[in-house]
Amino acid sequence: MIEKLTIIGIGLVGGSLARALRAANYVHEVTGHGRSVGNLQLAVELGVIDRVEVSLADAVRHADMIVLALPVGCMGEIFKQLAPVLADQAVVTDVGSVKGSVIEEARAALGKRFAHFVPGHPLAGTEQSGVGSSQADLFRERRVILTPETGTDADAVERVRAMWEAAGAQTQTLSAADHDRILAASSHLPHMLAYCLMDMVVRNDDHRAIIECAAGGFRDTTRIAASDPAMWRDICLANRDALLAVMRQYHADLGALTEAIEKGDGDWLMETFNRAKHARDALNKKL
Amino acid sequence: MIEKLTIIGIGLVGGSLARALRAANYVHEVTGHGRSVGNLQLAVELGVIDRVEVSLADAVRHADMIVLALPVGCMGEIFKQLAPVLADQAVVTDVGSVKGSVIEEARAALGKRFAHFVPGHPLAGTEQSGVGSSQADLFRERRVILTPETGTDADAVERVRAMWEAAGAQTQTLSAADHDRILAASSHLPHMLAYCLMDMVVRNDDHRAIIECAAGGFRDTTRIAASDPAMWRDICLANRDALLAVMRQYHADLGALTEAIEKGDGDWLMETFNRAKHARDALNKKL
Repeated sequence: MIEKLTIIGIGLVGGSLARALRAANYVHEVTGHGRSVGNLQLAVELGVIDRVEVSLADAVRHADMIVLALPVGCMGEIFKQLAPVLADQAVVTDVGSVKGSVIEEARAALGKRFAHFVPGHPLAGTEQSGVGSSQADLFRERRVILTPETGTDADAVERVRAMWEAAGAQTQTLSAADHDRILAASSHLPHMLAYCLMDMVVRNDDHRAIIECAAGGFRDTTRIAASDPAMWRDICLANRDALLAVMRQYHADLGALTEAIEKGDGDWLMETFNRAKHARDALNKKL
Repeated sequence: MIEKLTIIGIGLVGGSLARALRAANYVHEVTGHGRSVGNLQLAVELGVIDRVEVSLADAVRHADMIVLALPVGCMGEIFKQLAPVLADQAVVTDVGSVKGSVIEEARAALGKRFAHFVPGHPLAGTEQSGVGSSQADLFRERRVILTPETGTDADAVERVRAMWEAAGAQTQTLSAADHDRILAASSHLPHMLAYCLMDMVVRNDDHRAIIECAAGGFRDTTRIAASDPAMWRDICLANRDALLAVMRQYHADLGALTEAIEKGDGDWLMETFNRAKHARDALNKKL
């Protein structure tokens, strides 16, 4: 049970976490803070949060759990503002899609309070944004990865783990480096491919005809191209090295596929498509 | 109304067409022909077709509509076998994802009967294969593109159009060249990207961890990597030039995106992601 929960950033993820914890009766009071007054008002109207604090210091003063649900690029500034006003009992966690850069910023800003920061990342979300698309079951049976550092307080980790499990998720611990390398392939690269495909089509002379002929395959491969641009720009910049590694690999692989088509190498194509299909069928069975 | 319909290839598309036309009471008798006896037996057991003919000549002798629902690479051989046994009243159509190559093969094989061949392509399907996944509503409100040539008989086109509309689809006419260029971007390229991503991941050292961390984005962008490998090898070979053009464009665009990330060019990323998001949001509204 959390007595006083403060969420900084009441969007899809922050709003859904508030909804899930309220539905589970796991939180007594939820305070929201953010940049958009309209969004915060909507969050109160929807019953997602109890109250708004326009001052960050007031928002966190009495909190025992503080969740940063912001684009990765906004975290550093918030850590700096949090450092002087954090209460002793407060645990801080985040939901950022990149962990190494967030941990560096938290360590630099928080000083000895860094031990009470538990880096986290729920593997859930949709291409939508804003509290209006938040839902209480967003995390149900989804995975949340926690990446505590050597100095992270064990009790703080336990409190964050318990919060996510109350929200319906399963938790797992990884090193930040492992998280960032794995997510570069499982999430960040697919987003780049979807943005790139959608952007190529919109700049094509046949744009309208292509969109009119778009069936299920095109729709599914581009769904995440509707994701929040600022959030994904931040992820690109924050996880640059790991993302570049998988993008270069993909670029080379796509070059090899193009060459096989150019040469009319049907055997190569069959072998590659079969390997991919086998792996995708296995993922389907797992789901 | 079709008196005698013969479908060559009772898979997802052929089976779904039979189901749809029976559900609409638009066909009196459906004869199936294909390579897999087990699949044909299943089609009879499921009530998808009325009867099986193991000889192609017997299967088409009395048919007034013949639908070729086969991988593009199998069409040429079937046209050659059809040429000497086609009845006068028979209209022939196909469901191939590439039209230029199929038309060339039909023209070469069918002689003066080429006028009764109406090239077609239903923009419907899933990543699944086989009559077991066929469904009567697969074509409901989906688009079917017909690409008649200058010499194609107008009455034959009308009969094929009416058949697809009875199955619930909307029909549209394009030139074969326009079809192949547009579909290369709207369908063939997305399939290449999905196969390439899935194949890259399965060959990665982190394969298991990446699959375990795969959330909705990865699942959606790779769904069509479970598609039939032989069908897609054939499409690659049959639509080589148009596919190569969009693959090279995509390869260059992905290179530019990689370079922007390497340089940390946040403005470029924002501009590109915003343009893509805007286009994808517009597609969502259209659906």
